[in-house]
Amino acid sequence: MHMTRTLPLAASLALLLSSTARADEGMWMPTQLPALSEKLREAGFRGDPQDLADVTQAPLSAVVKIGGGTGAFVSPDGLLLTNHHVAYGVIQYNTKAGANLIDDGFVSKNRSGELPANPDFRVLVTTAFDNVTTQVLADARGKTGRAYYDAVDSASKRIVAACEAQGGVRCSVANMNYGSDFYRITQLELRDIRLVYAPPRAIGNYGDEIDNFMWPRHAGDFTFLRAYVGRDGKPADYSADNVPYRAPAFLKVATDGPQDGDFAMLAGYPGITYRNRTATEFDAQVGHVLPARVSVFDALIDTIEQAGKANADARTRYASQLQSLKNNRKRAAGELEGLLRSDAVHLRSEDERGMLAATHGTQQQRIAQLQKILSEGSAQGDRDLLLGLIATQTQLMRAALTLERLRIESAKPDAERETGYQQRDQALIEGLLKQVQRRYDADTEKALLTTLLGRYQQLPDAQRVPVFDAAFGRTADSLAKALDTLYAGTTLGTEAERLSRFAAAREGKPLADDPLIALAARLVPAQIQLDDARKAREGDQLRLRPAYMQALATWRTQQGRATYPDANSTLRVSFGRVTPLLPRDAVAFAPVTTVAGIVQKNTGQVPFDAPRPLLDAIAKGDFGSTADPALKTQTVDFLTNLDTTGGNSGSPVLNAKGELMGLNFDSNWEAVSASWWYDPSMKRAIHVDARYIRWLLAKVYPAPQLLQEMQLPAE
Amino acid sequence: MHMTRTLPLAASLALLLSSTARADEGMWMPTQLPALSEKLREAGFRGDPQDLADVTQAPLSAVVKIGGGTGAFVSPDGLLLTNHHVAYGVIQYNTKAGANLIDDGFVSKNRSGELPANPDFRVLVTTAFDNVTTQVLADARGKTGRAYYDAVDSASKRIVAACEAQGGVRCSVANMNYGSDFYRITQLELRDIRLVYAPPRAIGNYGDEIDNFMWPRHAGDFTFLRAYVGRDGKPADYSADNVPYRAPAFLKVATDGPQDGDFAMLAGYPGITYRNRTATEFDAQVGHVLPARVSVFDALIDTIEQAGKANADARTRYASQLQSLKNNRKRAAGELEGLLRSDAVHLRSEDERGMLAATHGTQQQRIAQLQKILSEGSAQGDRDLLLGLIATQTQLMRAALTLERLRIESAKPDAERETGYQQRDQALIEGLLKQVQRRYDADTEKALLTTLLGRYQQLPDAQRVPVFDAAFGRTADSLAKALDTLYAGTTLGTEAERLSRFAAAREGKPLADDPLIALAARLVPAQIQLDDARKAREGDQLRLRPAYMQALATWRTQQGRATYPDANSTLRVSFGRVTPLLPRDAVAFAPVTTVAGIVQKNTGQVPFDAPRPLLDAIAKGDFGSTADPALKTQTVDFLTNLDTTGGNSGSPVLNAKGELMGLNFDSNWEAVSASWWYDPSMKRAIHVDARYIRWLLAKVYPAPQLLQEMQLPAE
Repeated sequence: MHMTRTLPLAASLALLLSSTARADEGMWMPTQLPALSEKLREAGFRGDPQDLADVTQAPLSAVVKIGGGTGAFVSPDGLLLTNHHVAYGVIQYNTKAGANLIDDGFVSKNRSGELPANPDFRVLVTTAFDNVTTQVLADARGKTGRAYYDAVDSASKRIVAACEAQGGVRCSVANMNYGSDFYRITQLELRDIRLVYAPPRAIGNYGDEIDNFMWPRHAGDFTFLRAYVGRDGKPADYSADNVPYRAPAFLKVATDGPQDGDFAMLAGYPGITYRNRTATEFDAQVGHVLPARVSVFDALIDTIEQAGKANADARTRYASQLQSLKNNRKRAAGELEGLLRSDAVHLRSEDERGMLAATHGTQQQRIAQLQKILSEGSAQGDRDLLLGLIATQTQLMRAALTLERLRIESAKPDAERETGYQQRDQALIEGLLKQVQRRYDADTEKALLTTLLGRYQQLPDAQRVPVFDAAFGRTADSLAKALDTLYAGTTLGTEAERLSRFAAAREGKPLADDPLIALAARLVPAQIQLDDARKAREGDQLRLRPAYMQALATWRTQQGRATYPDANSTLRVSFGRVTPLLPRDAVAFAPVTTVAGIVQKNTGQVPFDAPRPLLDAIAKGDFGSTADPALKTQTVDFLTNLDTTGGNSGSPVLNAKGELMGLNFDSNWEAVSASWWYDPSMKRAIHVDARYIRWLLAKVYPAPQLLQEMQLPAE
Repeated sequence: MHMTRTLPLAASLALLLSSTARADEGMWMPTQLPALSEKLREAGFRGDPQDLADVTQAPLSAVVKIGGGTGAFVSPDGLLLTNHHVAYGVIQYNTKAGANLIDDGFVSKNRSGELPANPDFRVLVTTAFDNVTTQVLADARGKTGRAYYDAVDSASKRIVAACEAQGGVRCSVANMNYGSDFYRITQLELRDIRLVYAPPRAIGNYGDEIDNFMWPRHAGDFTFLRAYVGRDGKPADYSADNVPYRAPAFLKVATDGPQDGDFAMLAGYPGITYRNRTATEFDAQVGHVLPARVSVFDALIDTIEQAGKANADARTRYASQLQSLKNNRKRAAGELEGLLRSDAVHLRSEDERGMLAATHGTQQQRIAQLQKILSEGSAQGDRDLLLGLIATQTQLMRAALTLERLRIESAKPDAERETGYQQRDQALIEGLLKQVQRRYDADTEKALLTTLLGRYQQLPDAQRVPVFDAAFGRTADSLAKALDTLYAGTTLGTEAERLSRFAAAREGKPLADDPLIALAARLVPAQIQLDDARKAREGDQLRLRPAYMQALATWRTQQGRATYPDANSTLRVSFGRVTPLLPRDAVAFAPVTTVAGIVQKNTGQVPFDAPRPLLDAIAKGDFGSTADPALKTQTVDFLTNLDTTGGNSGSPVLNAKGELMGLNFDSNWEAVSASWWYDPSMKRAIHVDARYIRWLLAKVYPAPQLLQEMQLPAE
């Protein structure tokens, strides 16, 4: 017999499958972590969970919000590490003729060479996190519906205004567990951010759209920034005189790297999840919402493609909208596919059945009330989807609706105006009205409205709105005639016409006559009525969901599990481990990739066009202390089962000692449905290995001063 | 610490990589196997290698040639197992209105229900295998070039004629090791073959083109046939009175299945390989031949696509040619990619350098002479490629060239005619002339000739042929003018015109006037001259390559390795083991797939439209004795590192006990270059697991009588 037989891979995979299927689900509030000590230690964490409880103390105070993502301080001098794609705007802003920082990357030789970010770029450092539930709910108690909603809304706005009065900070009120608890978050707003180090696009975004959501991955998706403040230590606009910000804490970058099965922990600002939604909401999402979205996106995609067939100009104008529709379609289909694969509706429903059986009295009644309100809202889902798309997938129609709403809101005091139509929103609206020119074609817009309103006409009476029927009729003929008349007569296709009306609307003054404006004047009041009804339902949800959440928490405790609030863009911590992915029969993906994969994927063409210095350095094989001791080569990215969602981009990934061993930048395609359901066999997060960052800084695009600043080996 | 850590997959993969990288290269002649006893035993074989030496004795006499592939007897009553795609013509032949055997499959309830194959379908059973080197080379000794070629050719033809004189057998002379040895192969020609059992297309060809060359795979690519003979036991045409053929041997179907690392052995009729070609030939293949083929295929593809843009009719007529060009292009590019990835040119060149250093005297001189002749031939490569394509990628031009050559050859006695133009080839030629109607468009053919002859015009003078220059000139203008004149004047676009000339040509009579025929009359003599030169070079290669092969064999012996002759459609045996595939960084494919993969891939649309009875049976999970004990489910296909190439389709895959545990049906994409170079980390062969076949027969499309005939468990 041959003695060095191959390992029985098939058997290993079966074993792996069972071991990777253990759940490391949870986007924990830091305050919850001490209570999870045992679970943390069992997973391999070697620090004191108590240290993780306070977001204003080290180490979590090193974790900051940057743009739509996350970042972390990695030196006492305000040096920040985040994703290349999170800092992309900064790199783009500094790219000029003769200095293509996107393609060539950027290495600042010293601090004076660091380049100012675009002036609106912000880094937010959390300085306080306080429970304000009592204040927020004080006026709401005893109320229902719209009154409950308004009480919560006004209290929150008052708290924010009072907090921001101190200056230099941005404040917000976070709603945890769907109205159960409210927290006031105070964040220092750093306004002078500079670019320190960015790899070339072909490293930072190696693989681009083709590799997006894919594993195995080979991108170096990271960038170093530095925060500056005035000489008084306070946030300030850019000035050459500013000094590096003294970070309240910073993360030590690890010198050893992730191995399969290692403990991993991540802190960041996940945007939104729906894990604690009711079984009915799961059922609606899978059985109706997602299929309806896929269907209407397909129809809109087809409409634009048909309209563009004979019109090259329209093709160009709608290229970006088409791409965005295709992405939305892909995501909705992926989410649906994932939820079906995981059997999420069935599992959530069984789970809820168990929970309800253990619920009694007032709690039970309140949950029953909640379910009733949810199904009322759900019954209007198709209409809300279509009306929403009419207002977002068009240019002139959107302009008319926006102008009319702006006119109505602008007649009120600023604080009472609807969010999105306040003083501070006007620049955005003006920008929207200006860009119409590049994105509008009359025939295409009419075709899109024909598609959307045609579907609207098919809705059952209970979902219909009289003014829409009056405006467009109930037949294809009447719709076509109405659209022809509207678009033949409107002058909103001309920028000057839109902007003169914008000038009037922002003053609350009447708008000059136009067929689309006249239509909007009839439709907008109906929209406001629908909004009011929605707010009333939301008020009741805010009032009733806490009963559901409490029942769920009790039920989870009985199951030996803790509950975490759904993501809401506040700082969360998840922990788990470095984990392979076994996505399909006989297919296994190792959790760590190496530079060999860069060479294998490289075609020399975008997006697989690794820069020559990188390819040369790989060929040279001089990896020094950054090489993996087992693999004996340079690693690039790694995979964990950490619980993440959009907003976690740039989140630091910590090892058992709390050192930064990677940077989160994506998740796998199979995890698209994780916003609703965490499937332990499929949910993975994708990270840059800090050793790859260190190697690039040491050997490929050298920045010895940064390695020194982070107290890392020179090579 | 968490105790049930996941297996360190990354480390396992690294280990696997080194263990799978051991070579199990070799398409051995059965006579070589006793000398490989130690290697066979080390690999895990438990039988007596001596038993494998004689192709006319059990077990190898159970392995037969079927169509372009291989098959094996699995019962004493002539029951044969081969691939669905090898028997596809038989299934198609029996598919009629109301009996769609392709889509629905076929299960014969009993022997009288077995369906006759198309009358030209053959199964060949080898009855003798004799070394005839002395006879073949007797007249050749002392000769060179064309004379050597003719002497070998005539001797071979005489041997075949004498052998076939006994009747009922087909004979051939196989050239082993490029002129070193010649074997006379005598094969019983079974002419009454019947269809016994075929799965539906959506099982037999599950995944079709999308999964072609892919792993993991989930096809049940098998079919049962039965050979019949006359009541006298001799081969006979179909007759209801015929009786099942008493097979000289049959293979026992295994009841246990393949596990990762298990010994595996395969016997079949691999078509052609180039492993023992010289380093210069490797260099030319990678550096020139394959890039040139990719380039000219790209140009032809582009030409057809451009021509089809404005002409739907032309698009239809050239669809099949376009597809075939794309396949050829893909294969050439894949072969190139694989050879580059394996660094084959460098490795072969280092290997040869070592060999040459150990070579002296006459042997050394003969090898030097061989190298000179090879580079002469290689210098004409571009021209030969283009002239070849002119004669194969056109319709009217090909017709004219074929008719003229047929006229010339038909004037000779049949035995002296060029292969392809003998009496027995005439039906094929007539068919070719008839199908022109469905595949010809004048503008497209002119565009194709413009592309090919345009490239021809760019060749250096040394590769040019005066009559081609005279016919088409040396500029784009002269070429366009010549083609316009030819195609405006020719009448060969009419079937009757072609067939009337065919009638004359087969008699060796002059052909009626036509511009293309007149052109062919000038070109064909030049082609014959080129053929003569090629045969002269081939004669010298036949004379000189044995010196190279001898040097190689000596060198391999010094390396502790044995040499095997390149594949030439004769029976070969390869052995190795069940092996995973690690095709890219961080990607691992297990060597055994399961029915879970069928469900995962299933879309309900061709080619992933598994039949309902299969899906139901999978859902039911009743796998009985055919389930894998470790995976606890039904397996489908498996992967080995066995050395195969085209022609090995349907080859039985044997386990350590010599039992049939699978049926070869494909290889992986990364192995396309294996015809030149066996890369142990990438060369894999794909097989149906016999347990899947047994399960389908037991539970899904039941055929208990066949299980009984093969002495297999009923479930």
